[in-house]
Amino acid sequence: MPEARRLFEIDGAFEMIRGTISSPVIAFETWGQLNERADNAVLIFTGLSPSAHAASSHADPSTGWWEDMVGSDKPIDTQRYFVICPNSLGSCFGSTGPASVNPDTGSTYRLDFPVLCLEDVARAGQLVVASLGIERLHAVVGSSMGGMTALAFTLLYPGKAERLVAISSAARSLPFSIALRSLQREMVRGDPAWRAGDYADDAPPTSGMRLARKLGMITYRSAEEWAERFGRERATDDVTSREHGPFGIDFEIESYLQSHADKFVGAFDANCYLYLSRAMDLFDASDHGGSVDAALAGTGLKSALVIGVRTDLLFPSHQQKELAESLETGGVEVTFEILDSIQGHDSFLIDMDRFRPVVSRFF
Amino acid sequence: MPEARRLFEIDGAFEMIRGTISSPVIAFETWGQLNERADNAVLIFTGLSPSAHAASSHADPSTGWWEDMVGSDKPIDTQRYFVICPNSLGSCFGSTGPASVNPDTGSTYRLDFPVLCLEDVARAGQLVVASLGIERLHAVVGSSMGGMTALAFTLLYPGKAERLVAISSAARSLPFSIALRSLQREMVRGDPAWRAGDYADDAPPTSGMRLARKLGMITYRSAEEWAERFGRERATDDVTSREHGPFGIDFEIESYLQSHADKFVGAFDANCYLYLSRAMDLFDASDHGGSVDAALAGTGLKSALVIGVRTDLLFPSHQQKELAESLETGGVEVTFEILDSIQGHDSFLIDMDRFRPVVSRFF
Repeated sequence: MPEARRLFEIDGAFEMIRGTISSPVIAFETWGQLNERADNAVLIFTGLSPSAHAASSHADPSTGWWEDMVGSDKPIDTQRYFVICPNSLGSCFGSTGPASVNPDTGSTYRLDFPVLCLEDVARAGQLVVASLGIERLHAVVGSSMGGMTALAFTLLYPGKAERLVAISSAARSLPFSIALRSLQREMVRGDPAWRAGDYADDAPPTSGMRLARKLGMITYRSAEEWAERFGRERATDDVTSREHGPFGIDFEIESYLQSHADKFVGAFDANCYLYLSRAMDLFDASDHGGSVDAALAGTGLKSALVIGVRTDLLFPSHQQKELAESLETGGVEVTFEILDSIQGHDSFLIDMDRFRPVVSRFF
Repeated sequence: MPEARRLFEIDGAFEMIRGTISSPVIAFETWGQLNERADNAVLIFTGLSPSAHAASSHADPSTGWWEDMVGSDKPIDTQRYFVICPNSLGSCFGSTGPASVNPDTGSTYRLDFPVLCLEDVARAGQLVVASLGIERLHAVVGSSMGGMTALAFTLLYPGKAERLVAISSAARSLPFSIALRSLQREMVRGDPAWRAGDYADDAPPTSGMRLARKLGMITYRSAEEWAERFGRERATDDVTSREHGPFGIDFEIESYLQSHADKFVGAFDANCYLYLSRAMDLFDASDHGGSVDAALAGTGLKSALVIGVRTDLLFPSHQQKELAESLETGGVEVTFEILDSIQGHDSFLIDMDRFRPVVSRFF
């Protein structure tokens, strides 16, 4: 099985936790070769916004979102492992979600898509894995939302994965991050162009999405990093004059957020964003056993790597500590690291010099 | 001079740093008695949103915003000190600001109000002090934006205050807090009801103000406090059903933010909010001497109390450390305390058991 970009079509009804959809499709990519014993597979679940394109391949040579982590001689070494990355159910990069057409009605789902849970995303991933003839995974890996999804996977399918790698993630969402995501969703819903989810393809709620993305970017990084990078540097005159009026752009940090938010706004469907964002709020490992400890006693994992970052605002390091301790209590051999990166929650995408050796050692 | 609520009318043109206004009015309140030597006055500058009503008085018996700090036998003891609190220039609780009528045109200023700087707020405060026959202050006090304004006061009027109390404040705004405030302003400006500042009195940009207030509340407190208070508690059914649709309110934290934001939205003028918010971004003590150290060498202060809070996201404790060290380098006797409150930036309004003794000892 060579590197590939593929679609997996689930035949018939797919029961989600809070509803049913017909014949969903999951886009996924693979790298490396499945060995004869089919025991070298690594499944990667993504954060909220990435596609299945974790790394470049012959099938798609463009740079992937985790290019430095996945590949030949990279920490997740595609010479040794068969790596699978699905686009999350509910997303908009090939997998079925609110922006897809409901085959039962011929109309786009929009808000008729059932409430999405990370357990649904994990289950769609498992169907992909099964379709490839894989009984047992060498490891399931995820960062941020993907770490929660990977954890959900181990709770739904105990023993199916031998190892878990959970990066900048948590066993459940706490009120600070819930409040921020709820506010981001309110920004999108408050944009008149949202039209209760019924926006036209060429008239999405760009103002609301831009606000939400900016708040995301602010909370994905750290005050420390930005003080170093931007200080009180002023924006260039051409930017400030474009943003007319007395409350436009003064500082370079404002200009930076504006240009990055503009890029995101065109690329991500607003309803998909709302569904995935809320799925994170709803996730709580203790739903699978009454408490986090009780739930994590039943993963069947042999070992786990739990990584956090000192400057992470959204998934603070005490949440990785809780996860590591609960896994350990559950009999899993845990490697736990808090890294000193200054890039906050996004560090796993940026501070590769710190992350690579830790992940390499584990694999 | 008894406790009073008063208006001070500045006669003629008032030169602001970036413009001129005619005959502005500053609302202020006082508590206690000015002694014969007129050397027991304490001037309090407020944060962004409070009025001049720091504490109850005969003139206004309602509870003030710093009731536990200011009064008879309180840390700022009105039996010993004559306490003055002005409503900031640019605010909307009696002082002239963007919501006031421009006497030159007969129309509300709105965005014709000049760009506001905290130096302007400090200067308006000094005119109030001078009008009361006070040459020299026992202390100038401020928390959050008020701490910056108090610092601006010492830079504009070296030697005018003997003591400075700066709580949860900073010598300048850094990009993380600038980014958050810029985003809050964008939320207000993005509300179609804002109409470039030209909203009707009965149709203010409530959606934008509600979003901005919620982001304020999230960043004024700490993840730690909310995890303790709210955990993953669900909102009651009557709240969730009021908020229809699949992206309404699930959690108690969302319900809490909604009810508090609703209260603020009616009470604060949107344009005033924009002006004051940007004034904080623009503040940089180093404008008064080339560097923070150089500026703070010239305050003429005898002593200073600098307080920060471990969990403050907006004004992190390293900024109070910078302020304390620069004052000390400038020859000021500095008392520096980082408190272990979990209420984040807002701790000075809430965690009085920690703040009272520290302020008491200083006075």
